[in-house]
Amino acid sequence: MHTLTIVGVGLIGASIGLAAKNRRLFRKIRGVGRNRDSLERAKSRGAVDEIFDDAVGAVAGADVVVVCTPVGQIAREVLAAAPCCGPETLLTDAGSTKARIVAEVEERWSVVDSHSTAARGASGVHYVGSHPLAGSEKRGPEHGDANLFAGRWAVVTPTPRTSNETRDRAIHFWQGLGSHVLLMSPEEHDQALALTSHLPHLAASALALTLPEGLQNLAATGFRDSTRIAAGDPALWTDIFRHNREALLTALEGMERQLGLFRAALERSDWNHVDHLLAQAKKVRDALGN
Amino acid sequence: MHTLTIVGVGLIGASIGLAAKNRRLFRKIRGVGRNRDSLERAKSRGAVDEIFDDAVGAVAGADVVVVCTPVGQIAREVLAAAPCCGPETLLTDAGSTKARIVAEVEERWSVVDSHSTAARGASGVHYVGSHPLAGSEKRGPEHGDANLFAGRWAVVTPTPRTSNETRDRAIHFWQGLGSHVLLMSPEEHDQALALTSHLPHLAASALALTLPEGLQNLAATGFRDSTRIAAGDPALWTDIFRHNREALLTALEGMERQLGLFRAALERSDWNHVDHLLAQAKKVRDALGN
Repeated sequence: MHTLTIVGVGLIGASIGLAAKNRRLFRKIRGVGRNRDSLERAKSRGAVDEIFDDAVGAVAGADVVVVCTPVGQIAREVLAAAPCCGPETLLTDAGSTKARIVAEVEERWSVVDSHSTAARGASGVHYVGSHPLAGSEKRGPEHGDANLFAGRWAVVTPTPRTSNETRDRAIHFWQGLGSHVLLMSPEEHDQALALTSHLPHLAASALALTLPEGLQNLAATGFRDSTRIAAGDPALWTDIFRHNREALLTALEGMERQLGLFRAALERSDWNHVDHLLAQAKKVRDALGN
Repeated sequence: MHTLTIVGVGLIGASIGLAAKNRRLFRKIRGVGRNRDSLERAKSRGAVDEIFDDAVGAVAGADVVVVCTPVGQIAREVLAAAPCCGPETLLTDAGSTKARIVAEVEERWSVVDSHSTAARGASGVHYVGSHPLAGSEKRGPEHGDANLFAGRWAVVTPTPRTSNETRDRAIHFWQGLGSHVLLMSPEEHDQALALTSHLPHLAASALALTLPEGLQNLAATGFRDSTRIAAGDPALWTDIFRHNREALLTALEGMERQLGLFRAALERSDWNHVDHLLAQAKKVRDALGN
């Protein structure tokens, strides 16, 4: 393929650029963003070849356009890029939530469809949502990593409106970056990620907030591991929580229930039950590997 | 110093042996344990020079005796070793809880004091509790690490009954292994560790238990980091929870309060407050470093 356009060159966008370049998947990689400084850093790291402050020129003729902005901006960026995409372009994103983004994009297209001619171009666009399960609590293109996706899972979330061709091109794109691909509906994705990613972030933050000042010295490896993700960017995560509010509340209820089981066992000094709960938890964790 | 005796040669005991040997702190290191196989593995790793299945012979004439068994056995082991210790011996332990262990040891001595002659030997013993803040979810001497204590904190917990000399010898011992030393009362230690170590273990376990079967693929780095310590040995941790039940319940209340703040903000879609909570948590986590 010839051209890859990355909209948003933070940690994920830059990692996609570096991975694509390392694996020689595209001849040219374009980076789009509002922050000139960030774009320059992405370019000097070699994550992109050309930089643009606007999607219009950067998207035209691209084989793949991937939107890697914070989740709150993704639908807008996809809709802005769509009219410039030809039928040869796969349009996707790398957001941590999917249902709301995909719904906003598809809804807007169906409205536009029935009213204007610009619509036809948009509805001819090959968009499907994606989410590479890779990342870090760090930010910015300087933390980009060409191996971020290697051997990791990427979820592609087709809907009944997604063509098989679009779906298959997205699968191919993430596989090209080294990922294994899982297919899920946007809603299934969000319910699962509420449990595997959004709740852990909330729990790590609550645990960090429970540490009184002055006890930092005593927070050893266990505490550090357990709270590492709480160092993530608050604005990014507020967006994620906002997008996935209901599933996150349900996941939180699940965790509160488990904490309640521990509390009850501790209160009645039922050490067999404490041991049983810890043994069950160990089993779950051991199954995940390192 | 001439002889170090390590009672219990698991991960911590073996690491003490390896660190002491690496730093040439003792001429001879003795390992004591009931599990012959574990002792042999510790010896073949070079963590101990001689192995004993009973403390009596292993303790006589030692400069330092350190008890590294699970917390539920420490007081018993200390009391068993004490009569064989001379005035030249520093007796300490490496348990994750302190108040109950130290109380059990000191209480027993004061009772024995007034009734028998054996008492005089025991009350002449130089015992003080210790807790090196280092470890791992792994077990066994094969995971021993000569650098486990380097640059880490070790807490020494003197009481009004501890002589300055005993306290200073314990400080010197842990510094010799590369640790920085903090002095706290046994009760202060347990309240702090409830927050920095025991609650994180409980929270990691509750989070692991919240993961439904079939979602393992979607549990990426964040989930793995946050639940890593849940792979710890259930029996060891049940003992720790039992020893520190009240402080752990108080710490758990604190975390439930923080989760409640998140829940309330999510329920009323108060995204400014969610952002505020996440920003506060990030500040705490950033202050800890990596």
